Amino acid sequence: MGTAEVSLEYLFKVFTLPESKDSKLAQIEQHLSDNLADFLSQHVVTKVNSLSQIEKSFAEYSVPESPEFVSKHAEDLLDKLVANSVNTYSPSFIGHMTSALPYFHLPLAKLLVGLNQNLVKIETSKAFTPLERQMLGMMHELVYKQPADFYQSYLHSANHALGAFCSGGTIANITALWVARNKAMPATTQFRGVAQEGLAAGMLHYGYKKMGIISSKRGHYSLSKAVDLLGLGRQQMMTIDCPSQRLSAEKALALGKQFQAEGNKVLSIVGIAGTTETGHIDPLDELADVAEELGCHFHVDAAWGGATLFSKEHNRLLKGIERADSVTMDAHKQMYVPMGAGMVLFKNPNDSNAVRHHAQYILREGSKDLGATTLEGSRNGMAMMVYASLHIFGRQGYELLINQSIEKAKIFARMIQSHPDFELVTSPTLSLLTYRLNPQNVQTKMKSQATIDEALNKKLDDLTVIVQKQQREAGKSFVSRTRLQTKTYPEQAITVFRVVLANPLTTETDLQNILDEQIALAGNTHIWQKLCQQPS
Amino acid sequence: MGTAEVSLEYLFKVFTLPESKDSKLAQIEQHLSDNLADFLSQHVVTKVNSLSQIEKSFAEYSVPESPEFVSKHAEDLLDKLVANSVNTYSPSFIGHMTSALPYFHLPLAKLLVGLNQNLVKIETSKAFTPLERQMLGMMHELVYKQPADFYQSYLHSANHALGAFCSGGTIANITALWVARNKAMPATTQFRGVAQEGLAAGMLHYGYKKMGIISSKRGHYSLSKAVDLLGLGRQQMMTIDCPSQRLSAEKALALGKQFQAEGNKVLSIVGIAGTTETGHIDPLDELADVAEELGCHFHVDAAWGGATLFSKEHNRLLKGIERADSVTMDAHKQMYVPMGAGMVLFKNPNDSNAVRHHAQYILREGSKDLGATTLEGSRNGMAMMVYASLHIFGRQGYELLINQSIEKAKIFARMIQSHPDFELVTSPTLSLLTYRLNPQNVQTKMKSQATIDEALNKKLDDLTVIVQKQQREAGKSFVSRTRLQTKTYPEQAITVFRVVLANPLTTETDLQNILDEQIALAGNTHIWQKLCQQPS
Repeated sequence: MGTAEVSLEYLFKVFTLPESKDSKLAQIEQHLSDNLADFLSQHVVTKVNSLSQIEKSFAEYSVPESPEFVSKHAEDLLDKLVANSVNTYSPSFIGHMTSALPYFHLPLAKLLVGLNQNLVKIETSKAFTPLERQMLGMMHELVYKQPADFYQSYLHSANHALGAFCSGGTIANITALWVARNKAMPATTQFRGVAQEGLAAGMLHYGYKKMGIISSKRGHYSLSKAVDLLGLGRQQMMTIDCPSQRLSAEKALALGKQFQAEGNKVLSIVGIAGTTETGHIDPLDELADVAEELGCHFHVDAAWGGATLFSKEHNRLLKGIERADSVTMDAHKQMYVPMGAGMVLFKNPNDSNAVRHHAQYILREGSKDLGATTLEGSRNGMAMMVYASLHIFGRQGYELLINQSIEKAKIFARMIQSHPDFELVTSPTLSLLTYRLNPQNVQTKMKSQATIDEALNKKLDDLTVIVQKQQREAGKSFVSRTRLQTKTYPEQAITVFRVVLANPLTTETDLQNILDEQIALAGNTHIWQKLCQQPS
Repeated sequence: MGTAEVSLEYLFKVFTLPESKDSKLAQIEQHLSDNLADFLSQHVVTKVNSLSQIEKSFAEYSVPESPEFVSKHAEDLLDKLVANSVNTYSPSFIGHMTSALPYFHLPLAKLLVGLNQNLVKIETSKAFTPLERQMLGMMHELVYKQPADFYQSYLHSANHALGAFCSGGTIANITALWVARNKAMPATTQFRGVAQEGLAAGMLHYGYKKMGIISSKRGHYSLSKAVDLLGLGRQQMMTIDCPSQRLSAEKALALGKQFQAEGNKVLSIVGIAGTTETGHIDPLDELADVAEELGCHFHVDAAWGGATLFSKEHNRLLKGIERADSVTMDAHKQMYVPMGAGMVLFKNPNDSNAVRHHAQYILREGSKDLGATTLEGSRNGMAMMVYASLHIFGRQGYELLINQSIEKAKIFARMIQSHPDFELVTSPTLSLLTYRLNPQNVQTKMKSQATIDEALNKKLDDLTVIVQKQQREAGKSFVSRTRLQTKTYPEQAITVFRVVLANPLTTETDLQNILDEQIALAGNTHIWQKLCQQPS
């Protein structure tokens, strides 16, 4: 029946005895090692059950009473979980930022769990602590290019940090803005600082009515989360319309000046290097000027686009990032590290002291415990995956990967443009683009009209939603969708397919198949048939 | 030389071809699979280099230019990193909450990375989303024991959440207090709510001068981090002295009443179920009454002690936890899951809506995307490890593990008490205890004195620090140290050895050896020799 013995002897075996080679779990592991793509295509059933069907397998709400044999449970995992998960490795899964990973991460994942270090403090991580600091230093140098003596002074300094490693870009953005907030309201002779006295007292002391941040409408949702969490309030997340997908420095300056003229304080300008929705990069150098003029923090969210710095061909796109006070990067995006590897880098190694904290049993003053300046507490040794990747790919390896992604996005854009029934909505700067189905006759009609045909756009929106869902459910391929204001339709957000060409294994044939499938799916819809009957 | 080719063909191989069986990385993996303890004892050199020596291996600050062969890099990892990491599996590593893990987590770690799901949204996690919800539901039922229809309504409801899974207890505590803060200042006809308008506006609207939380001095450092981050200010982290190691409900009530009488607002009472330093459990039931009387949130930090609920023998220690509005638990502590598995549970499934957020491309309204109510954004599928552990151990398996840990701590306490030259400082409630070296003659002298001998205590403090460091550096075993106020020395914090008996594989012989080693190390110190000459 799969129920195991309830005895300490049995439980100790679970701790001390490895899976026998013919156990189900060992078989799964062997298959993963031998041929990951084959494992996934055999076990990740891409033609899936609906979510409500899947939920029926996960409906029990009590902790199981009796132990279950590992092998029995492994069967269950394959059957209920793996069979209904998503094949993020598939070359035709091009809708999100999760892609195929290099093979070496599989054995490294085992090593990570085998060592099970806790990076909050040296006592439970030892060499992992200098490793993480070194890795952050390498990423810092990639962004800020400081001289050798800078890194010699700060790389392993107990009183400084070049950045903070964390589970992802959201925590990185929050950490950056937390540091910015605490730096903006430091201690004076009459005030012990915002970290000590709190935000209301700080704003009163400094005479700020409101405190807010400025980014484009394309800013990541984690920025709103940050202003909520930090107590600024979501209303103080000031986003600027950007039909061009890039934040206008002029508008940011005007808004900031007006806001400050009203007795408020701009906490930070946030520039985006690779927006989540279209991959565009804000004019970072100009935004650095704006932040300077407003006297505020300048944060760059380069969670997606930061890895572009590895490419000598494309790194100029990020010009000005070296002027940012803080930069967010996600190694689990374009650095091909497993999920859970984000970081924030600080230009000034003193900045992390704005959020420093101590405790008696760890994080003692003067210690090099990483936990003293991170938002998270206990953390695993994921930094090893980033460290290994930096060595195994090297700058040159990452450069090739970045270059081929951007090149592939440009090819895909041309494929879309050359097809009469597709409309390219945003061209790729990095490896993202957006487009939609739009019959040739409708496109011709829309171009000839003086005003934007909102009704037609709404029909096209419906079409995009239907086709995107059907394609996802068919399970062969996946593109995502979003809603965007664009230059062509500045007054009306339209629904578009969103593509992220992150997976190096995606081929032009994969891309052609995805377009063909979308045309075929559209052809079966009433909306499409009606649209095609429109006079052009 | 280890430098690999810089070509896309080579890089694609890194993505598509597994390690050959005789590669170094495959060898490491095989050793991990065959015999983890042996791998660790061979490769984790417990007699380690000093931190500054280790730092020399991690001093380079530029991203390596050329790719390095995987096998070459694997050698490096063994040599520089693994050799200098910490053997958290060792039965004599009893200083922190990280311990041996069951074997099945090694293959599961590989499966996790092989699948590389992102739990922020259904589109990149599918079945992992209901799995995580179910696991949270099981933990919710363990704490709150609601009726069947409650779980049938809420387990998979798009508009509710029974909790939030996260990387660890720190994020869990912050999430709980974020929810509490936003609930405390909701929208009215004149006010859009603190999440929208911010903390300063909220406190003004509700007429609160300050807003703070109350816990004992033993509260985890993440609570101070939370009040800083949330904008309340660290001064508003009100901690109450607790020589008994437990928060006095009476004192908490008095402090809360006084604080509120001065025009302030108590945001939350925080009870601790298993303090980090001594494992004590606050009187949760009484604290629930206090929170009720003050009209505030009641949060329980059960990161360590929550798993005690699996034990029918010991779960009464946590009586009252079911009255908490929110509870933090860490599966990577007493549930033996790898690092990175924390959670917060909410009594009221509506509570998470106080921090709900949406975005266009994901987390759309009405979706079941987990990211809409979590502090973190992209997250990996670590919930699978908790799910698997709940099934493979079952409640009964966990019960045995919890019971034997507590039993072992009691045995260790008796060993310490029966040794003339040790002083037990705090007895175990759960599996933690603290003690110190103190020669018999000094103990006799201190007992006979009417007042506490501060000078003697300081010498004993120095002794504890020296022995703790030397024992750690010798590398055979590890206990941690902290500073505590206790009933015997209420006015003066003393330095103590801190022991966590988390590892089920730790034997009485291991414990005896640790005491013997401490006696031997102490014997070689001048302080000890001088102390022994004191008249008793």
